[in-house]
Amino acid sequence: MKAEIISIGTELLLGHIVNTNAAYLSRKLAELGIDLYYQTAVGDNPERLVQALKKAIIRSDIVILTGGLGPTIDDITMESVARLTLRPLVLNKAVLKDIKRYFKSRGFKPPPGNEKQSRVPKGAKCLRNKFGTAPALIIEHLDKVIICLPGPPREMEPLFEDGVRRYIRKKFKSGAIIRTRTIKTVGLPESRVNTVVKDLLKLPPPTTVGIYAKLREVHLVITAKAKNGACAAKAISAVEKKISSRLKSYIFGYDDDTLESAAGKILTEKKLTLSAAESCTGGLLSKRLTDSPGSSGYFMTGIVTYSNESKENFLGVPGAFIKKYGAVSRQVCGQMALGVKHFACTDIGAGITGIAGPSGGSAHKPVGLVYIALATDKKLIVKEFRFKGSRQDIRWQASQAALNLIRLNA
Amino acid sequence: MKAEIISIGTELLLGHIVNTNAAYLSRKLAELGIDLYYQTAVGDNPERLVQALKKAIIRSDIVILTGGLGPTIDDITMESVARLTLRPLVLNKAVLKDIKRYFKSRGFKPPPGNEKQSRVPKGAKCLRNKFGTAPALIIEHLDKVIICLPGPPREMEPLFEDGVRRYIRKKFKSGAIIRTRTIKTVGLPESRVNTVVKDLLKLPPPTTVGIYAKLREVHLVITAKAKNGACAAKAISAVEKKISSRLKSYIFGYDDDTLESAAGKILTEKKLTLSAAESCTGGLLSKRLTDSPGSSGYFMTGIVTYSNESKENFLGVPGAFIKKYGAVSRQVCGQMALGVKHFACTDIGAGITGIAGPSGGSAHKPVGLVYIALATDKKLIVKEFRFKGSRQDIRWQASQAALNLIRLNA
Repeated sequence: MKAEIISIGTELLLGHIVNTNAAYLSRKLAELGIDLYYQTAVGDNPERLVQALKKAIIRSDIVILTGGLGPTIDDITMESVARLTLRPLVLNKAVLKDIKRYFKSRGFKPPPGNEKQSRVPKGAKCLRNKFGTAPALIIEHLDKVIICLPGPPREMEPLFEDGVRRYIRKKFKSGAIIRTRTIKTVGLPESRVNTVVKDLLKLPPPTTVGIYAKLREVHLVITAKAKNGACAAKAISAVEKKISSRLKSYIFGYDDDTLESAAGKILTEKKLTLSAAESCTGGLLSKRLTDSPGSSGYFMTGIVTYSNESKENFLGVPGAFIKKYGAVSRQVCGQMALGVKHFACTDIGAGITGIAGPSGGSAHKPVGLVYIALATDKKLIVKEFRFKGSRQDIRWQASQAALNLIRLNA
Repeated sequence: MKAEIISIGTELLLGHIVNTNAAYLSRKLAELGIDLYYQTAVGDNPERLVQALKKAIIRSDIVILTGGLGPTIDDITMESVARLTLRPLVLNKAVLKDIKRYFKSRGFKPPPGNEKQSRVPKGAKCLRNKFGTAPALIIEHLDKVIICLPGPPREMEPLFEDGVRRYIRKKFKSGAIIRTRTIKTVGLPESRVNTVVKDLLKLPPPTTVGIYAKLREVHLVITAKAKNGACAAKAISAVEKKISSRLKSYIFGYDDDTLESAAGKILTEKKLTLSAAESCTGGLLSKRLTDSPGSSGYFMTGIVTYSNESKENFLGVPGAFIKKYGAVSRQVCGQMALGVKHFACTDIGAGITGIAGPSGGSAHKPVGLVYIALATDKKLIVKEFRFKGSRQDIRWQASQAALNLIRLNA
């Protein structure tokens, strides 16, 4: 079973938006065991869309289109599909009713153009859109299927989840399913992880391993194609065991886990509370820690001491101390961690101070120099890092290192 | 002059990564006045890549490939281009030297596979990659051009900026250039902005206006195609004036401006200092304010008072007060702003308290209820918001509203 995706919109070709829909649908098709060979993006141009559609319908069994279902003349998906499949556009009363209801619930009358969205290729199955006015369409054409989804992700994704997935699963009962398992590591560069699992990266199908560096983490993705879920799980588990035994504590989580949720999980398990004092990261560590629902169970206080005065006033770091060693120093960092732990009355205090750049560096203390400290009831750890990259990247790496330190030492 | 982009990599077709390269290159080509009609993504499969290449080279003048230039057997771009253009792969000594130098500077010997990256289609122009080992290639084939770029954005983007852009500009001296101007607004929903500029959205080429909703901002992008920069600037300016006169202070910035940089600019101009006390946003406001280089000039202290105790200890909000009104209340929010202003000794104090969810809401105080306060020497403003969406989205909207309040009232 082969599928392909055609994304429609001149804004894609001008680079005004990134095609996250294609990535989302690709992932979902892989989970359904459907092979995807092409993603194409075309503009709001009927000729080129019909050309792309023609090509796609010949070489693939399922063609999924996103975008171009809006109410304006730029929205050409319905007409193009109708042209290709030689069907007239006919009014779908249920869709029209839905559109009227959508506007009514928001206290508006439907603008005249919106009726256009209820004129669909004859014989199309329409799926109801709870988050907008464009319906999703499923059109069975000869032995192929064309699926049209609206462009905005918050409309497209629920429509796929609710109706399209079930339809595909039923229609194309695949002899095989594909399952993936993502193993997430932090603290090793990609080249090092690559060396450690080199043999596994060469595994032939049906069970393969891919390596991806992402936001200063390295992820290993095991993909197994098998006749059912149990077989896929078994195949994945065998490879996962090997990876676990080699990468040990560099592994912080799996699939949807984040480094912040992994750190939070450990704090929750150990019933520990945490506070953070940040300088160069400016609140990024606190922000990430509180991204997880339930973080109020362990995270108590974050203090962003961007000025020297605030390091004195809020963390009790003596001014003379800052003068002697500098705000970016091992000593001040340790005092920040101890200070926030003390004043916030938590089990652990974390401190970060450094130079995120682009200016503010010197030969002695260059941009990228960051100290990270962790104060617990038993010990004070202070680590020095020399990160490379942009301001944002250095700040991100510092937050990664801090979360990893919390995860490993809480 | 027509171009198209082919992105190569099975990880794209599995949805493991989002194709940001295509968006980046599309934007850059538009700036050069080159029309782009197609973006295609294919996997690491030589047959399908050659098919896609064949199709592209017929219908376009420039074909830009990204990815597939690595050292492994999965990397098929060089071989596929060689096959299509009927050229042998030949060793490029300068590229080999670069590769050896790259590894030497990192204290490694080049692994055997890496030599593969120096075998390029005969006659290809090689551009030096400062951030990796894969060179960029420019291959002139009949009257067409094939450009190969590595997949990682931090290698691809500098190679495009440094060499490819200049090559395209010189080779394809276009009779026209394309300029864009992005006008960024905050505080109005997309449908409202849409109504206000409806006539402009229908402007015919060569000067058009697009509307894009992005992270709770609405951006209007003016695109002008003209014979030179001055003409394009004039065309853009005429439309921009109309937009400005209609959207006035909802406009916070242009092009690369962010809401945080816009707020920072006003604080810098007015020589004001700021501190922030956050609850539900957990440091996001501080993080965003300190994203901008130079923010240490106006941002002094951020306090994330996630627990009630920390609201008492660090901001002086009386416990009895929290008990009476609740931590999420107009009254506590005002006290948070006043408290942080007082203790951090700044001109302005900002306070945020709310319920980000997914749990913690009630009928009286539902998820999404957020109070935001601004305390200055002259006034205390407290506003109530009722945001909808996920935890992350509610936190983001709260930070947007707070930055906007700072921008408008500092």
